[in-house]
Amino acid sequence: MRTVKLTIEYDGTLYHGWQVQLGVITIQGTLQECLSRLLGHPVCVHGSGRTDAGVHAKGQTAHFRTGNSLPPAVIMRALNALLPDDIAILEAEEMHSSFHAQFDAKEKEYCYYLFHQPKRSPLNCRYALHFPEPLDLDQMRATLVELEGTHDFFALSTASEEKENTIRTITKAELKDEDPFLIITIRGEGFLHKMVRRIVGTLLEVGIRKISAVQVAQILQTRDKNLAGPTVPPHGLFLMSVRY
Amino acid sequence: MRTVKLTIEYDGTLYHGWQVQLGVITIQGTLQECLSRLLGHPVCVHGSGRTDAGVHAKGQTAHFRTGNSLPPAVIMRALNALLPDDIAILEAEEMHSSFHAQFDAKEKEYCYYLFHQPKRSPLNCRYALHFPEPLDLDQMRATLVELEGTHDFFALSTASEEKENTIRTITKAELKDEDPFLIITIRGEGFLHKMVRRIVGTLLEVGIRKISAVQVAQILQTRDKNLAGPTVPPHGLFLMSVRY
Repeated sequence: MRTVKLTIEYDGTLYHGWQVQLGVITIQGTLQECLSRLLGHPVCVHGSGRTDAGVHAKGQTAHFRTGNSLPPAVIMRALNALLPDDIAILEAEEMHSSFHAQFDAKEKEYCYYLFHQPKRSPLNCRYALHFPEPLDLDQMRATLVELEGTHDFFALSTASEEKENTIRTITKAELKDEDPFLIITIRGEGFLHKMVRRIVGTLLEVGIRKISAVQVAQILQTRDKNLAGPTVPPHGLFLMSVRY
Repeated sequence: MRTVKLTIEYDGTLYHGWQVQLGVITIQGTLQECLSRLLGHPVCVHGSGRTDAGVHAKGQTAHFRTGNSLPPAVIMRALNALLPDDIAILEAEEMHSSFHAQFDAKEKEYCYYLFHQPKRSPLNCRYALHFPEPLDLDQMRATLVELEGTHDFFALSTASEEKENTIRTITKAELKDEDPFLIITIRGEGFLHKMVRRIVGTLLEVGIRKISAVQVAQILQTRDKNLAGPTVPPHGLFLMSVRY
């Protein structure tokens, strides 16, 4: 048995997220279907983690095992021919047999794109959230500094179980102004469900001066979800890369 | 009666082109429906010209007439609230009563986007044609120089009637290399049906050295459509602006 790692780009718009679910089309399900056809046996694809419905990826990773001896480069080309236009394999490489895309992942990077202009733009709304209001970028940057490091992110996620360990480490959080886009990059060792989108929603409330950077630190400490901002829509979010 | 000019951006992916047709959704039809609802009377929207199914616009223009006294800025805001996400009004201005979006147009600019990289990319395939093969950009640029000026573009269009006047003037034709994108800009006083897409298809055949820049000049002279390249798909094409 060989273990093959895939690096995958996808437009998540039409998918019900990464993970296989009965009766709906998912990224994992589509990959498994195409790989099974190609390799002639049922294939289980293990992702680095789930992405939610509508979230995109420039560098999702996954692995699968096969007895088939096709070289990875051939698997990649054949798979790209079988896959729909909105999913593509960027890289396929053979790994040592114990490699696991989820458990071996050291760090993930997400980007959230905002289209920051008064008027909405049809040609810029598929991959970015339109945000027409003025934003205090300095306060937003100050908040991102507060978020870096190890914190209990319970309030900035949709985690509901008090039992779940909600402590996570953000290794980098920054805001780039690439007019008319604002790009929020968040890198961390692991993320809670909808954590990045809830961070961005809270950051936007800081941007419009509804809450302050100091209050965000308090939200984390008090673990009070009601004080946090909303979960922003999925279409501005990209899983950029997974480091091993 | 007032005459109002609109500047319109749209993602043409889901539309059967600009022009109203029975039983299908079009840009013109959608605009007319929303404007009629807003102004309380049937509205006829005259575009600067048609765009084909799947073609996008960053600056299509149109005009309509109304007895309603709403200021243009209010019409724009209300219309943007009514229109679907893939159509937006960028500007609305009152014009003199004789203004006509089609007949007064002096020059139009189109851009065609190529995603020029060996691997296909799901996140770059909605608004650009993926072209994986190496291209001779110098020869393509030499061809664009040949195309500038006044020529009979019969062979580089889908015009079938020998009676139609197929002489047109291209005022600017250039190729920009914005890696991984190649952007072909063509500006002219008027265009034949599918002319820009047939020019780009022919240009790509020059790029892969199937035909030469000199041969393109001969194709124009001989009016032989069989020697021209194919009509490239609509999703890479943008109507950028209309000058009056």
